[in-house]
Amino acid sequence: MSALLETIAQLRAEVCALHAELTRYGLVVWTAGNVSARVPGHDLMVIKPSGVSYGDLTPGHMVVTDLYGTPVSGANIGSGGTVDWGNPPLSPSSDTAAHGYVYRNMPDVGGVVHTHSTYATAWAARGEAIPCVLTMMGDEFGGPIPVGPFALIGDDSIGQGIVETLMNSTSPAVLMQNHGPFTIGKDARSAVKAAVMCEEVARTVHISRQLGEPVPIDPAQIDSLFDRYQNVYGR
Amino acid sequence: MSALLETIAQLRAEVCALHAELTRYGLVVWTAGNVSARVPGHDLMVIKPSGVSYGDLTPGHMVVTDLYGTPVSGANIGSGGTVDWGNPPLSPSSDTAAHGYVYRNMPDVGGVVHTHSTYATAWAARGEAIPCVLTMMGDEFGGPIPVGPFALIGDDSIGQGIVETLMNSTSPAVLMQNHGPFTIGKDARSAVKAAVMCEEVARTVHISRQLGEPVPIDPAQIDSLFDRYQNVYGR
Amino acid sequence: MSALLETIAQLRAEVCALHAELTRYGLVVWTAGNVSARVPGHDLMVIKPSGVSYGDLTPGHMVVTDLYGTPVSGANIGSGGTVDWGNPPLSPSSDTAAHGYVYRNMPDVGGVVHTHSTYATAWAARGEAIPCVLTMMGDEFGGPIPVGPFALIGDDSIGQGIVETLMNSTSPAVLMQNHGPFTIGKDARSAVKAAVMCEEVARTVHISRQLGEPVPIDPAQIDSLFDRYQNVYGR
Amino acid sequence: MSALLETIAQLRAEVCALHAELTRYGLVVWTAGNVSARVPGHDLMVIKPSGVSYGDLTPGHMVVTDLYGTPVSGANIGSGGTVDWGNPPLSPSSDTAAHGYVYRNMPDVGGVVHTHSTYATAWAARGEAIPCVLTMMGDEFGGPIPVGPFALIGDDSIGQGIVETLMNSTSPAVLMQNHGPFTIGKDARSAVKAAVMCEEVARTVHISRQLGEPVPIDPAQIDSLFDRYQNVYGR
Repeated sequence: MSALLETIAQLRAEVCALHAELTRYGLVVWTAGNVSARVPGHDLMVIKPSGVSYGDLTPGHMVVTDLYGTPVSGANIGSGGTVDWGNPPLSPSSDTAAHGYVYRNMPDVGGVVHTHSTYATAWAARGEAIPCVLTMMGDEFGGPIPVGPFALIGDDSIGQGIVETLMNSTSPAVLMQNHGPFTIGKDARSAVKAAVMCEEVARTVHISRQLGEPVPIDPAQIDSLFDRYQNVYGR
Repeated sequence: MSALLETIAQLRAEVCALHAELTRYGLVVWTAGNVSARVPGHDLMVIKPSGVSYGDLTPGHMVVTDLYGTPVSGANIGSGGTVDWGNPPLSPSSDTAAHGYVYRNMPDVGGVVHTHSTYATAWAARGEAIPCVLTMMGDEFGGPIPVGPFALIGDDSIGQGIVETLMNSTSPAVLMQNHGPFTIGKDARSAVKAAVMCEEVARTVHISRQLGEPVPIDPAQIDSLFDRYQNVYGR
Repeated sequence: MSALLETIAQLRAEVCALHAELTRYGLVVWTAGNVSARVPGHDLMVIKPSGVSYGDLTPGHMVVTDLYGTPVSGANIGSGGTVDWGNPPLSPSSDTAAHGYVYRNMPDVGGVVHTHSTYATAWAARGEAIPCVLTMMGDEFGGPIPVGPFALIGDDSIGQGIVETLMNSTSPAVLMQNHGPFTIGKDARSAVKAAVMCEEVARTVHISRQLGEPVPIDPAQIDSLFDRYQNVYGR
Repeated sequence: MSALLETIAQLRAEVCALHAELTRYGLVVWTAGNVSARVPGHDLMVIKPSGVSYGDLTPGHMVVTDLYGTPVSGANIGSGGTVDWGNPPLSPSSDTAAHGYVYRNMPDVGGVVHTHSTYATAWAARGEAIPCVLTMMGDEFGGPIPVGPFALIGDDSIGQGIVETLMNSTSPAVLMQNHGPFTIGKDARSAVKAAVMCEEVARTVHISRQLGEPVPIDPAQIDSLFDRYQNVYGR
């Protein structure tokens, strides 16, 4: 049990610190946007609370929930005892259900990030995928960044839309229509990197297209870039 | 009396600190832009002075005025005595009359913010409302952000334009034509949040429309988002 | 003599500090852009040196020159003595000749600023004046921001272009074609404010025009805004 | 030998510090982008490692490689001894081969920089050269910023594309198609300045062209600007 609590303490610190990357790269304003991490080997996750400003976030604010978004309390895992999970008197992010759905249905995913970053959300508002016209996009996304369905908050429809779209794509990012990007990764840091790169390519391709059409990249060359970056290059 | 002076001291500190959010989010340059708060239960407000740079603002610079924008001095409220209101030798913001008009005519409003934030002002210069094509816009504004009339500074016409426009809207933000946004809230912090979100959606929808038409959101779904965010979600 | 040297020491500190406003508002990169101040009552000015990075500037780097751009040394003003002007072993800004021409020909000008700020320079590259479609532009500029002629560095043609354009305008800013903005003020701080506001309105009007035509403001109302802001309001 | 090691220590510190200029001017996100310096008089260079965040970079992270990108170790130059080059247990940047190709084929080049800066990369994605319509562009680039060929990472094709394009140009910057800019200079600082100015003119000319066509500058006047800036002005 103490090993689990130590892991959770580390994830709380890591997830908290990663929110600073969202503000550093201008992906979020006020309290929008959230990062979560799966607790490896357990049906648990660590996620940002609702309604706390980025400047005020501390590791102790991070909420531990099950994969349905319910904050854990009392019941010990695998025994009859009880335990202090250290949860704050705060609700988890209002997007927690979507994070949990992803963890339940994509077992290799260890981190999820959601933002309303400006350029990615602008593509999402048009319901338009971002074409792969940059070598860095080939490296990171292996093709276009796809659009997911319009879905309202309140049930599993956002989570389903994310999973169905990403299952059929090399991309770790999906643009939920009229809403904004969700990104995944093997851990929370990878998912944050995907969120940063998603906004970067959304912005660069937008600006390129303002004055004409970008030159397409041959799909075989995109595959070659992606394969090298993900495998040979060791990421 | 000392309870009132204590409340005013707290509001001076809060209003002063909230101006840092305007600069943090890039909503203002030089000395443009101002935040005010109603003094609850009194016909008074606390507002930024005119002509002081953001970096130099201290709580002691904030001016206490009546709801017609006249700095208070001397006369004690509800008694024959006099009191030191702590007002600095500075004029209140040149937009004070508009703030006061809002407080006089919208009793539930506890905070008002005015900026010339770039994208919101760009929509205002075209006299064009921002369409509600983002879920976060449904959450915060419950529909389009409306345009108010062209009005010159110097009398009540700016205040009237704000009140008439916002009375008929779910939006806490109005784009005064050729001028810029005014936002309201239950307190000064809520009005600042509305100013930040107004610029964010003004920018995102602008960028989305640069390369095509955003997908409309069904008005019933906008109502559902707004209702949930304002009521169920507890904001 | 010591009063003059004290004035110069104050202007060195002020001119140095004002360069931080240029970087704060993103008007300059690397070493481009410069601020100068006239030494009141003397045919002298204080100006940024050439080629020093903004982060490294100190008051001691500021160069005192005559109004033809020659650094002063040795000869005492109005006496046969000599004096240590404290000039660094640095050349004054390569734009010094243009600043000096303005001071020689516009006696009420106490400060000059030159930048290549992005949006103002974008209008300058098209040789297009910025139309007055914002109330804040009426306040500060009293009409459009005009374009000056294309002129090469090396003689008085830049200075002449600035002076001829600003003599016929209420605007304290001119967009030199294919080059960038020059602004003037009663002192260096006012000229810096004009540079900041010039970029702000260049950016806002640009963005507004990207999606349609801004609503014009009646010239009589622009006059009224400008008159109030410059006179009644006490700026 | 100790003189060489001292030179390398200085270059490590300088190259490390120059990466802060890339982040200061917003040219890079996450770990993309890299600076290198030639070790004068030796077939060696100092370059950023792969995969270290900008905030974490220290001089000790910088890798010393030969001009084919192989980190040096053990073998002493010009003697039978061995030496501790101080290399970290990190791979050099994945772009090291391109840097090395430039140093092998352009003996006057002492510094190379690669970024994916947004506006320059947007021009690169369209495969379009940036026209010289700004006097500051005449000063720094002496003409348009040219486009280099599409080339995949993994062999010398990126390096060849850079060298062939820059050999026929006054510009110290090339936009590699669908990829991003590479810049050169007499030392690493000059190459960083070229990267900053490349993005600045890419952005300004982009914005200018959004609302019409910039006024062309007579090529003879561009030559005059470039000649003055590079020679007379002493850069």
